[in-house]
Amino acid sequence: MYKSITTLLKQQPQSILRNYSTDKFPRGFKTGTAACGLKKTGNKDICIIHSSAPCNVAAVFTENKVKAAPVLLSKQLLETNNYKGFNSLVINSGGANACTGEQGLKNAKTMSNLTSSLLKAPQASLVMSTGIIGQQLDMSKVEKGIADAVTTLNESDWISAARAIMTTDKVPKLAQKSVSLNGGEVHIVGICKGAGMIHPNMATMLCTVCTDASISEDCLRALLKHSVHYSFNSINVDGDMSTNDTVAIFANGSAGNKHITDTTSSDFLQLQEAVREVTTRLAQMIVRDAEGASKFVTIKIHGADTEQNGHIVANSISTSSLVKSALYGEDANWGRVLAAVGYSGVDIDPLKVCMWFAKGDGKDVGLGKKNDPETSMQFLEKGTPLAKDENKAAQLLSNNDVAIVVELGMGKASSTMWTCDLTEEYVRANSHYRT
Amino acid sequence: MYKSITTLLKQQPQSILRNYSTDKFPRGFKTGTAACGLKKTGNKDICIIHSSAPCNVAAVFTENKVKAAPVLLSKQLLETNNYKGFNSLVINSGGANACTGEQGLKNAKTMSNLTSSLLKAPQASLVMSTGIIGQQLDMSKVEKGIADAVTTLNESDWISAARAIMTTDKVPKLAQKSVSLNGGEVHIVGICKGAGMIHPNMATMLCTVCTDASISEDCLRALLKHSVHYSFNSINVDGDMSTNDTVAIFANGSAGNKHITDTTSSDFLQLQEAVREVTTRLAQMIVRDAEGASKFVTIKIHGADTEQNGHIVANSISTSSLVKSALYGEDANWGRVLAAVGYSGVDIDPLKVCMWFAKGDGKDVGLGKKNDPETSMQFLEKGTPLAKDENKAAQLLSNNDVAIVVELGMGKASSTMWTCDLTEEYVRANSHYRT
Repeated sequence: MYKSITTLLKQQPQSILRNYSTDKFPRGFKTGTAACGLKKTGNKDICIIHSSAPCNVAAVFTENKVKAAPVLLSKQLLETNNYKGFNSLVINSGGANACTGEQGLKNAKTMSNLTSSLLKAPQASLVMSTGIIGQQLDMSKVEKGIADAVTTLNESDWISAARAIMTTDKVPKLAQKSVSLNGGEVHIVGICKGAGMIHPNMATMLCTVCTDASISEDCLRALLKHSVHYSFNSINVDGDMSTNDTVAIFANGSAGNKHITDTTSSDFLQLQEAVREVTTRLAQMIVRDAEGASKFVTIKIHGADTEQNGHIVANSISTSSLVKSALYGEDANWGRVLAAVGYSGVDIDPLKVCMWFAKGDGKDVGLGKKNDPETSMQFLEKGTPLAKDENKAAQLLSNNDVAIVVELGMGKASSTMWTCDLTEEYVRANSHYRT
Repeated sequence: MYKSITTLLKQQPQSILRNYSTDKFPRGFKTGTAACGLKKTGNKDICIIHSSAPCNVAAVFTENKVKAAPVLLSKQLLETNNYKGFNSLVINSGGANACTGEQGLKNAKTMSNLTSSLLKAPQASLVMSTGIIGQQLDMSKVEKGIADAVTTLNESDWISAARAIMTTDKVPKLAQKSVSLNGGEVHIVGICKGAGMIHPNMATMLCTVCTDASISEDCLRALLKHSVHYSFNSINVDGDMSTNDTVAIFANGSAGNKHITDTTSSDFLQLQEAVREVTTRLAQMIVRDAEGASKFVTIKIHGADTEQNGHIVANSISTSSLVKSALYGEDANWGRVLAAVGYSGVDIDPLKVCMWFAKGDGKDVGLGKKNDPETSMQFLEKGTPLAKDENKAAQLLSNNDVAIVVELGMGKASSTMWTCDLTEEYVRANSHYRT
């Protein structure tokens, strides 16, 4: 009766492995990787990213009051150096270097300085770490790993970089996009790791985006904020937020495009759209690969008075354990969804709410939309439940990709979030992570 | 490897069945019950409570914007009648009468009027409903059930009343307390139903407390607010909030105590303490009986700057799926607890946080407390992890009752919440509730 997780949609994220072009990676960036033994499996656990030209950098960090040493160090390095002049980043998996006190901070600095020194970079490296918290990194392993990784630097192996930052991820996560701007074609590549503890506000995830665009620090910051809002802050797996989350973007200007300094320019908007597409695809890969997830769920809110309120309602639905358990059971339990809408904190009118369940991404579903009866069913019309065929509903929800579409009837704003179901496998995976 | 739920602590709540005295029930109240067929099992699904003397009533209702018909009706009846003059309450299980539109409201009124009419009560009955939402009640069954229940009215069978309001509860929930006040001994009895969707702010739970105390409407309201804060609003199962939640207290004055009109009087404080004890025991029974729970978990926060901030931190821990999964796995994962402290929204200083895991209720655990090494282990000292024996930790957490104690080092306020672990059984139970 209960599905084996191994039969589920875990193959999907791997398709990205066949879909990237090595000749479209941003120019001037190299990656190097190594397996230094932090991971008991012997898999790669050190990743270095190096740019021949100095980069402008923007970053968003965890809002958790408990911040890991590499987060504290990287924030400080960025501020001290005015978000520019960076040539390198070092990432380790297999240890979060969080709750590690003064020694932890010292170790993060050692990683930073060793990397920049080996790369002959004029400025200290940024640092990211992921893994178990509360344990000191074995620095003899890490130092050897960094030295080994530097010897492997090359321009085309971004997939190994994506692999080296994995923890409980089942597949490496990489997305790329190119866009023609004034003065040249610009390339973007992003890698990330996710799995458990994913939440709006970016729980336990690391993401690095590199682009050869020429863009000012201020514009880069605005672009990243926008992209993170619509990607990593629009996904939910289990509502926890980690000590290490970081999204950083490096821009080295090697594309030779006309330097972007204006957030209202066409070049800026095109680049922003492209980066948003890269981060959105990465964020969706994280949801698809979430520990124990069996379904990819799109939550679409229409008719909100403001986009922010739409986001609050979408978040309330996507964090409801009862909604997520029902989806796992392929039960179109609109009552639980409506309850989550009702307690979201937004002042909704229950008698204006309409609701649909759909297969796929719910794109053409809702008030005044196509609402193909083969792929969607309406369950609620202005607060009143509609008669429905339970067998057809269960069949709809038997798909791997399903959507819940809610019309609030309050205004014209929309919001979309992505989440997954809550499965027995989630509990199994998370009850024995450390051992 | 994974425990069978049937072997777990489900017996515990039943112990209350042996622990009540029929001669200590509040005077002047009778209960009647019937099985009218709303429950497919044929179990009792109608409960009537009747007081020979008119009662002052206070009530707290769900804050969900989507409110069930009986909630809307009862609120209106209370306001219209200034919270006094009520002789009766009718409750059905097997159907929540929520999202049922005008017809639902009409049905709730029919239940109210039929009950007061059969009881010859001068004022319409209050109404509560629980069960699946979005379906109209079968009123021919309900009306017959109310008529049948009226014929069974008696003073001693509060356990049948507790049984008749159960939905997915495994055991009936009843608590009682007596206290000597000026002018006479006062008795209190409370019944409630809980199970899934339990949250601070009282999700899917109904509770009725009856007392023969003589107390003003205003004092009764103050007393209930206090009691709910420290009981039903201090438990968490899965963070959802339902459309039907109601806690009501009826006071009929039959004890002959000196009428209480002053919230600073000794009589008021004693009665408040007694009611708080009753509601706290009921709230804890709800957690122990939560769908799929295998552990009863006490979260104690000490050293908060304000009680409210302590409550926010406790709530953040008790809603973390990762913390709750780890507890199920008997894994002393202090890192997940610390992460939940860090993202609670309270401005904590990670370098001041201490943390203990304990068996039992964590009462004697914390800074400057006994901290018996047989029953507690400290994992974090001012932000720094302590070396620990993982086997001993797992043994500690193998108990059914466990506690997490956190010292924030910010001030002198404390807060306690009760929750349960997140188990595979929870997901199973909630993925197929409707079918």
